Amino acid sequence: MSRFLIEKHKALVPYTPGEQPKIQNLIKLNTNESPYPPTAETVAAAEQEAKRLHLYPDPTCSGLCEAFAKRCGVSSDQVIAVNGSDEILNFAFMAFCDESRPAVFPDITYGFYPVFAELNQVPYEEIPLERDLSVDPRKYMGIGKNIFLANPNAPTGIALSVKDIAQIVASNPDNLVVIDEAYVDFGAESCISLIRKYDNLLVTQTFSKSRSMAGARLGFGIGCEDLIRDLNTVRYSTNPYNVNRMTMAAGIATLKNDAITVKNCESIIKTRESTIEELNRIGFETTPSSANFIFARHPEIDGKDLYLKLKERGILVRHFDKERISQYNRITVGTPEQMQCLTDAIKQIMEESK
Amino acid sequence: MSRFLIEKHKALVPYTPGEQPKIQNLIKLNTNESPYPPTAETVAAAEQEAKRLHLYPDPTCSGLCEAFAKRCGVSSDQVIAVNGSDEILNFAFMAFCDESRPAVFPDITYGFYPVFAELNQVPYEEIPLERDLSVDPRKYMGIGKNIFLANPNAPTGIALSVKDIAQIVASNPDNLVVIDEAYVDFGAESCISLIRKYDNLLVTQTFSKSRSMAGARLGFGIGCEDLIRDLNTVRYSTNPYNVNRMTMAAGIATLKNDAITVKNCESIIKTRESTIEELNRIGFETTPSSANFIFARHPEIDGKDLYLKLKERGILVRHFDKERISQYNRITVGTPEQMQCLTDAIKQIMEESK
Repeated sequence: MSRFLIEKHKALVPYTPGEQPKIQNLIKLNTNESPYPPTAETVAAAEQEAKRLHLYPDPTCSGLCEAFAKRCGVSSDQVIAVNGSDEILNFAFMAFCDESRPAVFPDITYGFYPVFAELNQVPYEEIPLERDLSVDPRKYMGIGKNIFLANPNAPTGIALSVKDIAQIVASNPDNLVVIDEAYVDFGAESCISLIRKYDNLLVTQTFSKSRSMAGARLGFGIGCEDLIRDLNTVRYSTNPYNVNRMTMAAGIATLKNDAITVKNCESIIKTRESTIEELNRIGFETTPSSANFIFARHPEIDGKDLYLKLKERGILVRHFDKERISQYNRITVGTPEQMQCLTDAIKQIMEESK
Repeated sequence: MSRFLIEKHKALVPYTPGEQPKIQNLIKLNTNESPYPPTAETVAAAEQEAKRLHLYPDPTCSGLCEAFAKRCGVSSDQVIAVNGSDEILNFAFMAFCDESRPAVFPDITYGFYPVFAELNQVPYEEIPLERDLSVDPRKYMGIGKNIFLANPNAPTGIALSVKDIAQIVASNPDNLVVIDEAYVDFGAESCISLIRKYDNLLVTQTFSKSRSMAGARLGFGIGCEDLIRDLNTVRYSTNPYNVNRMTMAAGIATLKNDAITVKNCESIIKTRESTIEELNRIGFETTPSSANFIFARHPEIDGKDLYLKLKERGILVRHFDKERISQYNRITVGTPEQMQCLTDAIKQIMEESK
């Protein structure tokens, strides 16, 4: 720490992203990336723009926002494009939360929410998940705080229904509800359609998971025009050219090729289900995941121990030290071949530890 | 404005970036981009990474930081990479300024500084430039506030010497001095070497100007290890994957090809000087610019009027409504051919207004 860091940030504990080791031939199942590379059209679109890198990108991101809005069935002034969905989540904390507008989210969820709250000096409450690790929507109804919910939740993968979310939104008319749909394309239902009815709903999405663009950094916020205007005020007061040319073009190309995204998601869902079956067969408990990851624990193997033993074998999954979930590992759904390697390795580890 | 925007941001007036119109054949001299496109190697490096977009970028940006640190003669833990230098400037306000650590900068400078100050609730003082639009370094010595200076300054292009900056830094040992070197490669001297001696100096640079990468979004902060650690705390608390894969690779490739950057800068300086000569010949007053732009006014043509008449002719320059400089236009140095078109158009406009 330097002697110049201001008082309020002295205790700030930043978010720890999943490891990104530079080891060759690693089976990387720790950061919920898609196992499927971008299409040739997406690569070509990015390359085309790389030739014009000497020129600033369009700060309004108009072409991209129009394409995304069309895909979502909303208008382009109900959409904001950002440098990965972490950016829009931080903007939401910046724009809408303060001492008098505190935040609430589950105790087990995306680990960045408390960091954003601390960074922005926002008081927050964490509501414990149920015993089965699900979110009880009734606990958020009429709560009178700004609500942040990942749907499906991470790292559990468990989703709420649009009906549940509508009730949460309707019962908190004077507070903002942020639904983080990073994983929505893997089996949950988007609540974007609700933004027409509710001015207090902000939906966030990312191109990092279902759209094979984690390396490009692209996320979106979707909400009523006034919310988007406020978020643009924050964006233009921090970094107006936040989305670069190549990512913008890659995003548009990816949206044009939406059938590929759908197909990739179907493959991932299929692989997820067969892997869950296999894991259950060998004694793992798993949560009912609607995401591109599996959250699993085994009564006979310590969570951290399994994580470390898989790592020794060149398979990286994500383990969280947090007490309540320390027996679990979050396993990204890769290709069927990768998941075969994973289950083979787990069986070996279990055999050896007998 | 939505009814959810928090109190402290209700009066926030965001930065207005230069226009990015989508008009064909426009001569665009308004946002200080390089007229020279990136090299084939840079384009190829970006394309190569576009094929791996499904994977997150390295959040530590280690390869890029090492390459940039080597270029600057510092170590890689004295360097932080960001999504354009606006991001590092905002991080500096976030990390090091508050009520008790106010900011100071010239009244005429990069228009984003007061926006960052307002956004982060930082009190600030603006020190008027001298009559010749230069910064008097004595006015910053021992001032006891965090100092933000663009060097060369924008939109004047006038640079301070490293000696002057060293005196400012040395005379404010308990305050941070941020030197924004966005335009340093066009004839000013970088003060990066001073970071070894002073722990209260942060230098910021960008790849948007001399390195033909405005569209890629890449900036850097350079300072002592402790300052960089604090800035990384802020980075990891807002957006750990802030620099995308393609930009990272393009940045490394551009650094490898540094001779091209040097050559482009030499061309731009040559074009700037010949354009200034020509403008002076027809009666313009210009500031002594060490940047890739010219700041010029004519006693017989209103600044805004000239801006509008050039725009009618398909030539875009930047005009600022701020009273003290409203007679000026800031003109990016383009290719010799573009500058020929500019001076021809100006002569025509002057002829017609006689």
